[in-house]
Amino acid sequence: MYSLNNLLRQLAYEFQDKNLLTQALTHRSHSGNNNERLEFLGDGVLNFLVAHQLFQRFPKLPEGDLSRLRAQLVKEQTLSEIAISLNIGECLRLGEGELKSGGWRRPSVLADAMEAIIGAVFLDGGYPAAEALVQRLFLPRLENIDPKSIGKDAKSLLQEFLQGRKIDLPEYHVLATEGEAHCQTFRVSCHIAKLQMTAEGKGSSRRAAEQQAAQAVYEQLLDKGKK
Amino acid sequence: MYSLNNLLRQLAYEFQDKNLLTQALTHRSHSGNNNERLEFLGDGVLNFLVAHQLFQRFPKLPEGDLSRLRAQLVKEQTLSEIAISLNIGECLRLGEGELKSGGWRRPSVLADAMEAIIGAVFLDGGYPAAEALVQRLFLPRLENIDPKSIGKDAKSLLQEFLQGRKIDLPEYHVLATEGEAHCQTFRVSCHIAKLQMTAEGKGSSRRAAEQQAAQAVYEQLLDKGKK
Repeated sequence: MYSLNNLLRQLAYEFQDKNLLTQALTHRSHSGNNNERLEFLGDGVLNFLVAHQLFQRFPKLPEGDLSRLRAQLVKEQTLSEIAISLNIGECLRLGEGELKSGGWRRPSVLADAMEAIIGAVFLDGGYPAAEALVQRLFLPRLENIDPKSIGKDAKSLLQEFLQGRKIDLPEYHVLATEGEAHCQTFRVSCHIAKLQMTAEGKGSSRRAAEQQAAQAVYEQLLDKGKK
Repeated sequence: MYSLNNLLRQLAYEFQDKNLLTQALTHRSHSGNNNERLEFLGDGVLNFLVAHQLFQRFPKLPEGDLSRLRAQLVKEQTLSEIAISLNIGECLRLGEGELKSGGWRRPSVLADAMEAIIGAVFLDGGYPAAEALVQRLFLPRLENIDPKSIGKDAKSLLQEFLQGRKIDLPEYHVLATEGEAHCQTFRVSCHIAKLQMTAEGKGSSRRAAEQQAAQAVYEQLLDKGKK
């Protein structure tokens, strides 16, 4: 009971229908009246509200970058971190098996409950209430997000790193192609002439192999920077 | 100009800022101030509004079915059909190349513009305006949707068809597994003893092969039903 009151205080939202919050905290292992439908609704409203926040905050950012930023903000890991900060795990209603196996600390269970709570607030208080809650929960993350780096692929990050230092772009070479036509493996090198750095990557497509090679070089560069 | 007035009448929404509608109708091939960001926003609000409509209309439907219904309603084909019914193609602003290659009738271009218009209405008139528009545009589809059939996979459809007729469930057998471990092909048969029907399916997983086999049997059954 203490935990639930604590959660309500942290949500800073007063439910008209407290059963909705109870349902949002009920895992499917506990009973039929569980949080799965609320999670569906909450996922929708959360995705949209975060999209709108990003749209407003970054008026020049292209659509692809907005999508990547949103994916970072609504992914399971982020949601479960927020759920942990609200101690949602202590309030979950789990079936016996889930309880014993530690379901209350499983990221997917926590993230689902987080979405379900957002769905419950939307149902209970309408769009403005859900908007206020999402803004409050995500504000620190929205303020710290860096559209230049987050969610970008390794090749893009490496390219920008080099451009910022006026270094020629990396060269990628296919070293080998192995396997049959429909299940090939590519080995690719990424070479930065000026820095005399090379790394290799492997993948089921040339693109995937290039990304892995770029990632390896980029990490070497960052390591160097730290020293 | 006639087309645009016609579109405005059909949307039944009065823009305070008409530039937003112009932007929603501008393809990236035309100019920098195009509809891509509005499409991002519109996609979010549309997904959520449709989720909410389904949540309300089907109070007993599990989350997975709600997801499948939503996917059907917001997919490119549905959106482009609605766009065609509003004659959006005539109002699009396209670059010369896109214009010549018939971009105004391409489903992806039309669907993107449809989402962008929904995003523009949200920005211009807020959540209630977007909600009213989406309800109006999707009402016929929402009213005709059948949660029992739409979006279900072939195995489930076949199973329900047979259960409804008190026929024993199909048997699936792996006939062959070909290829190396990481790129196998499965051949599976689906057999309905009582009807003496059999069909085969192929796929990169057993599950995929079963689905294909079930699909083939299901189509045979529907064909029989028509005769």
